[in-house]
Amino acid sequence: MIITATTADGSQIRDITARAGVFNPEEVACVGALWEEYLADGPEVCGYHFIVDREGDRLRGWACYGPRDLTSGVFDLYWIAVDPDCRRGGVGRGLLVASEAAARAAGGRMLVAETSGTAHYEPTRQFYIGMGYTLEASIRDFYRPGDDLAIFIKRF
Amino acid sequence: MIITATTADGSQIRDITARAGVFNPEEVACVGALWEEYLADGPEVCGYHFIVDREGDRLRGWACYGPRDLTSGVFDLYWIAVDPDCRRGGVGRGLLVASEAAARAAGGRMLVAETSGTAHYEPTRQFYIGMGYTLEASIRDFYRPGDDLAIFIKRF
Repeated sequence: MIITATTADGSQIRDITARAGVFNPEEVACVGALWEEYLADGPEVCGYHFIVDREGDRLRGWACYGPRDLTSGVFDLYWIAVDPDCRRGGVGRGLLVASEAAARAAGGRMLVAETSGTAHYEPTRQFYIGMGYTLEASIRDFYRPGDDLAIFIKRF
Repeated sequence: MIITATTADGSQIRDITARAGVFNPEEVACVGALWEEYLADGPEVCGYHFIVDREGDRLRGWACYGPRDLTSGVFDLYWIAVDPDCRRGGVGRGLLVASEAAARAAGGRMLVAETSGTAHYEPTRQFYIGMGYTLEASIRDFYRPGDDLAIFIKRF
């Protein structure tokens, strides 16, 4: 079941992020900071909407999306992470579909997913392509030398 | 003289932004919010570095730059604004050069300037090109339908 994240989800969100295998320690810390903003201010104020795929007491994955400041109708998919033990079960697909639906319902015209161009992220890029996203722009050596930025977009 | 902005500069920064003729009310409000963060937390914590071109008590222009989260060496030029009464005096050029120098001194590999693709911003785009920036990516209908995102980059 995919629903809005609540306070008790924090520890599993952090745990899944750390175990996902694609985020470095700085990125894991960044998730923690956004989560604190989400709890303190709420999604409408801070701009970060957390959703989770919950099965009983256990989270299978989570995502975070929100409107891009100074645009009319652009939403960013900031994060999406699936428990490595739940891969190939459609969890990522469900979370992305739910993020798209929420963005559309809030007047979104497109959802932007930024990711890395390294070989390590090839499954991530294939995931977005399989979900109907288009690689609309790349910026060479963005994250660090040899690690390009890839901007995937789905227009509604 | 281009120097770090101090508390007293706030009112002139807002005034120049409102009179610059290229920012809408939402953007002017956004500058105010970043400025409050800058005053409250300081640039190292909030990530927004404000610099001003000051002549006596009067500001001729201002800029705001800072490091992009989760990258190693990418700096964003968030804002640059020149008093309309000081156009063609090299104020924008000086502020941009100072921002580049500060980014480089902090380990920056590139400075990213995002702007609009509309006709109204043609002088802005020509300014970046004249300063050695390259249009590395565009995203159609980004800010709103008919208003593309143009990503200019200078690599150091």
